[in-house]
Amino acid sequence: MTNKSTNIKDVAHLAQVSTATVSRYLHGELKRMAPTTAKKVAAAIEQLNYVPNAAARQLITNRSKTVAIVVVNVADSFSTEIFKGACSVLEPAGYTTAMLDTNSEQQKENQLINAVGLSTYDGLILQPLSSDVAQIKSEIRRSMPIVTLDRHLDYSPWPQIISNNFEASQEAAKYFQKHGYTRAIVLSSQIDVASTRQERFQGIKSVYQQVELIEINETHYNHQQVYCQLEKLLTASSEKTVIFSLKERWLIEFLPALIGSGILAAKNIQISGFADTTLVPAIWPSAKMIIQNPYKMGALAGQTLLKLLNNKQDIQPITTIPTTFK
Amino acid sequence: MTNKSTNIKDVAHLAQVSTATVSRYLHGELKRMAPTTAKKVAAAIEQLNYVPNAAARQLITNRSKTVAIVVVNVADSFSTEIFKGACSVLEPAGYTTAMLDTNSEQQKENQLINAVGLSTYDGLILQPLSSDVAQIKSEIRRSMPIVTLDRHLDYSPWPQIISNNFEASQEAAKYFQKHGYTRAIVLSSQIDVASTRQERFQGIKSVYQQVELIEINETHYNHQQVYCQLEKLLTASSEKTVIFSLKERWLIEFLPALIGSGILAAKNIQISGFADTTLVPAIWPSAKMIIQNPYKMGALAGQTLLKLLNNKQDIQPITTIPTTFK
Repeated sequence: MTNKSTNIKDVAHLAQVSTATVSRYLHGELKRMAPTTAKKVAAAIEQLNYVPNAAARQLITNRSKTVAIVVVNVADSFSTEIFKGACSVLEPAGYTTAMLDTNSEQQKENQLINAVGLSTYDGLILQPLSSDVAQIKSEIRRSMPIVTLDRHLDYSPWPQIISNNFEASQEAAKYFQKHGYTRAIVLSSQIDVASTRQERFQGIKSVYQQVELIEINETHYNHQQVYCQLEKLLTASSEKTVIFSLKERWLIEFLPALIGSGILAAKNIQISGFADTTLVPAIWPSAKMIIQNPYKMGALAGQTLLKLLNNKQDIQPITTIPTTFK
Repeated sequence: MTNKSTNIKDVAHLAQVSTATVSRYLHGELKRMAPTTAKKVAAAIEQLNYVPNAAARQLITNRSKTVAIVVVNVADSFSTEIFKGACSVLEPAGYTTAMLDTNSEQQKENQLINAVGLSTYDGLILQPLSSDVAQIKSEIRRSMPIVTLDRHLDYSPWPQIISNNFEASQEAAKYFQKHGYTRAIVLSSQIDVASTRQERFQGIKSVYQQVELIEINETHYNHQQVYCQLEKLLTASSEKTVIFSLKERWLIEFLPALIGSGILAAKNIQISGFADTTLVPAIWPSAKMIIQNPYKMGALAGQTLLKLLNNKQDIQPITTIPTTFK
C-alpha cells in the first residue's frame, strides 16, 4: 500500500532536485536531464515508495498528456479509423488517447463534451453529431484546444478536417449517368440530421433530378420492411438502375438478401455508395464504391491538435481530404 | 478567458456554502441539496466566471468519476461491444467511460496500463493481451479497482468475466462429427499468444484428433497466399469437411472468395467458428456459428467494477458467460 503522506516535494528533497525535475522524470522526459539526475530521482522514488498522485501532478504541470477523441459511434469502422489515425500521431508525441462514444445520441454528445471540459484532458478531437457550434461551446466550460472532423461546422472557431462529400457523390452520379443508368435509388439514414448526408444527397441530386429515396431510422427500423420496400422499387421497372447507399452499413445489411433473391444478377442494377471497408466489393465484386480515408482524417486532426497544444500559428481552418472512387 | 485566480473557495464563500457543496453541485448531485442552495451556487459561479479546475476538484473529492476500458483492438466489434456493455451500466451510475486501444501490441498494453495508473481514472476494465498477471501488476503504480475480461488470467487478484471457450468449441465439434464431418480445418490467428484461442483449439482437438491448421499472422500475412493454402486443402480431399474459424475476421475475409470460386457449393463443406456479428450467415446462410456475448460481458464487468468502487463484498472471482451455437 502507498504511503499517503509522501509527496513530490519529499522525492525532490531526497534526490536534491527541483519538483519540476521530478515531474519531468514522471512524464518520461529523460532527455531533459542528466542520466545521474534520473538515477537519483528513481532511487528516491524507490526509497520512499512514492506513488505519484495524478491530480497533484497535474496541478504542478498543468498538463495531463491525455487527449479525448469523441466519436459518433465506436461500432462504425469510420469512427475507429479516425481514432487509430489520431493515435498514430498523438502517441509518438507522448499523449495517451482515449475514445468516448456519443452512440449517435445528441444528449450524450452534450454530456460527454461537458465531461471532457470538466476533466483533465489537454485537448479534444470531436466528430460532431450536430452542426450547432453554439451548443458545443456552451458545454465546454474552459478554454481548450479543439479540432473537429467529418461533419462540417459553419462559422466554427475550431480547425476542421472534412471529406469532399458533395463532389464525391456528384462525380459518382455523373459516372453512372454517363454509363446509361437512368434511375437512382438512394439508401440513407435520416438525411436532415447530418450535414455529411445532406451534402452527399445534394451531390446525387445535382445529377439525377429524380431520386427514389429510402430513408431508414437507425434506431427504429424493421429489416424485413425496408428490404421489401427496396425489392418493390427494384422490380417496378426494368430501367438501368444504380443503388446508391449514403452509408456502407445499409449495403452490408441488405446486399446479401438481394444477391440471394437473384434480383441483382437478373436485372441491370449497379451498386454504389460510400464505404469505409472493402466488404461490399468482397460480397458483390462489380460494386463501385466511394472510399473515404478516415485514418488520414484522424491523423491530420492529431497533427492539427498538436499544433494547437504547442501554440503553433500555421493552422488551416478547413482541410478537405479527398475520397477515391473505384 | 478564465479568471485564473478564482477557485472553489471563492465560490463557496460568495454562495455562503461549503466547498463540498460546490463540489457536489459541479458533479451534478443536485438531489443532495436544497434548490435554493443550488441556485446560490450557480449564481456565484456565474458572477465570478468560475471554471472548475478538474485537477483541483479531484484533490478535494479524490474521485474523477471516469473509468478506463482498455481493449485489444477498437477495430474488432468484440472490443467495441464490451465497451458498449460496460457503458450501459457505468454511465447511468454517473461515470464517464473512455476506451483505450492496445492495438494487439504487448508493449502498448504495458504503456497504457501504466498511463491509466498514473492518470485520474477511478477504475479499470481490462481485456488483456497476455496472461501475465505479474506484468500487469508491475505497470499499475497504485491500488485501483480492476476487472478483467475475455482472456482468462491464472491466479489473478482481480475479478474476471470470461466465455466458455473450450466447452463451446467442443460442443460445436461434437455436432459436426455426429453429422458425418470427418475432417476439420481450423483458421486462426497465432494460437500461442492468446489463452482464448488455445482453449478453443483444445476444444476442437478434444473431438478431432487430426486437425489441419492454417495459422495467420495478423499483422504480416499475404491474403492471396492464405487463400491458396485454404483452397489447396479443400480440393485435396472429398471428405465431408468443416472449416472452423477461431476468429470471425478470417471468414469475413476469405468466405466471399470461396463462394465466388464455387468450391463451397460443389463440395460437402460446412462453415463454423466464433462470431460477434451476423455477417457470416448473411453471406453464407448454412453456416453454424458460435456466438459470444461481449455486450453482456462488458455489462457484467461494469457491474463488478461498480461493486469494487462502492466497496461491496459479494464479488465472484470468475464469471463465465455462455455462448450460443446456431
